[in-house]
Amino acid sequence: MGSKAVVILSGGLDSTTCAAIAAKENDEIICLTFDYGQRHRRELRSAREVAEHYDAEHLVVTFDARQWGGSALTDEIEVPKGRGLDDSIPVTYVPARNTIFLSFALAVAEAKAADRAYIGVNALDYSGYPDCRPEYIEAFQAMAAMAQKRAVEGHPVRIESPLIQLSKAEIIRRGIDLGAPLDLSWSCYEGGERPCGECDSCVIRARGFEEVGVPDPALSGAGV
Amino acid sequence: MGSKAVVILSGGLDSTTCAAIAAKENDEIICLTFDYGQRHRRELRSAREVAEHYDAEHLVVTFDARQWGGSALTDEIEVPKGRGLDDSIPVTYVPARNTIFLSFALAVAEAKAADRAYIGVNALDYSGYPDCRPEYIEAFQAMAAMAQKRAVEGHPVRIESPLIQLSKAEIIRRGIDLGAPLDLSWSCYEGGERPCGECDSCVIRARGFEEVGVPDPALSGAGV
Repeated sequence: MGSKAVVILSGGLDSTTCAAIAAKENDEIICLTFDYGQRHRRELRSAREVAEHYDAEHLVVTFDARQWGGSALTDEIEVPKGRGLDDSIPVTYVPARNTIFLSFALAVAEAKAADRAYIGVNALDYSGYPDCRPEYIEAFQAMAAMAQKRAVEGHPVRIESPLIQLSKAEIIRRGIDLGAPLDLSWSCYEGGERPCGECDSCVIRARGFEEVGVPDPALSGAGV
Repeated sequence: MGSKAVVILSGGLDSTTCAAIAAKENDEIICLTFDYGQRHRRELRSAREVAEHYDAEHLVVTFDARQWGGSALTDEIEVPKGRGLDDSIPVTYVPARNTIFLSFALAVAEAKAADRAYIGVNALDYSGYPDCRPEYIEAFQAMAAMAQKRAVEGHPVRIESPLIQLSKAEIIRRGIDLGAPLDLSWSCYEGGERPCGECDSCVIRARGFEEVGVPDPALSGAGV
């Protein structure tokens, strides 16, 4: 029986590279995307296109995080620009988002008998997000081993976070090496049809491509 | 500032008693219910009525677990009757359900600045469900302490599972003592307008009331 993995796929640069890694390491990937009321819904289209690129089953789970709010990504408050990416936790932090995403990944993995769940979290560029740190992933892994029928029967879901210690430039290089469709990916926090170029996410992405020394393929036409 | 808690409220007997305990222990409760494609949707009405009884804010989070399935509670397979409640994990187990529920509870607690999240899991009558065991709750608690902005700022959400070691009869006695609206609660796994009386959940409930020696108020008319 081939190895099967669930990949949390937002449609961003990191999760697109993460999907490329998962596709390389497994015989079959199932892409899992969340439509949670994010203002940058444009990423959902990217997620669909990336899943199609990998000819993967694509599940889109819909819930509405605006019911409780608490984030600039879901509430009607401004996405910060030019914040300078200091050490504080950004207002774009979404309460318990990765915990919710990973919990659904456990459910899907169990129902589909997949042994791994991939998440493209990154501790360097988003050091402010508590749920992007290695110690968080380890704690989630320990919890997952207790949580599920398949786990207690000897098949715990292994949480894979292959990007966690990489810089944005290293993620881009990795994506390019693996032929990941970075042209299809979407990073901008704003809801427009083209990247704003000014939000934290656009700034980090642009710096990454600059460091690698290649143009961002999503800006050259094909992906936008 | 008064204490505030999120209560996961399915509308069943256990979560109704759990809400009564949370309402007693806190100044304010926020009830959190999940509409996830369960066939026993009748419980959603009970949840609403219990939340109204406590004059509590009531959030209903909707997602569709039928997208991946893996449970008799969501799929079109038969709910077991007269299984005898042995030691195996029942087919009514829903993959990662409590993990998903608790993850949303963390999100709501953080967004609303609540310090506790109550869940009415019970390790005795449902010993087969891995996500009803004390060791699972402890692992989730450890993960939660790493997961959130409020947690790393010194306000982790405390997971309260006050029913975890009680028998069904003890839960019923506790509910009666606290004046919980058990007449409004709904336990049946089937989707009908009246409890089927035959599914595992109906059987466990009936045994509990029998042991306490009081009639089930939900069967006497008011709650059905």
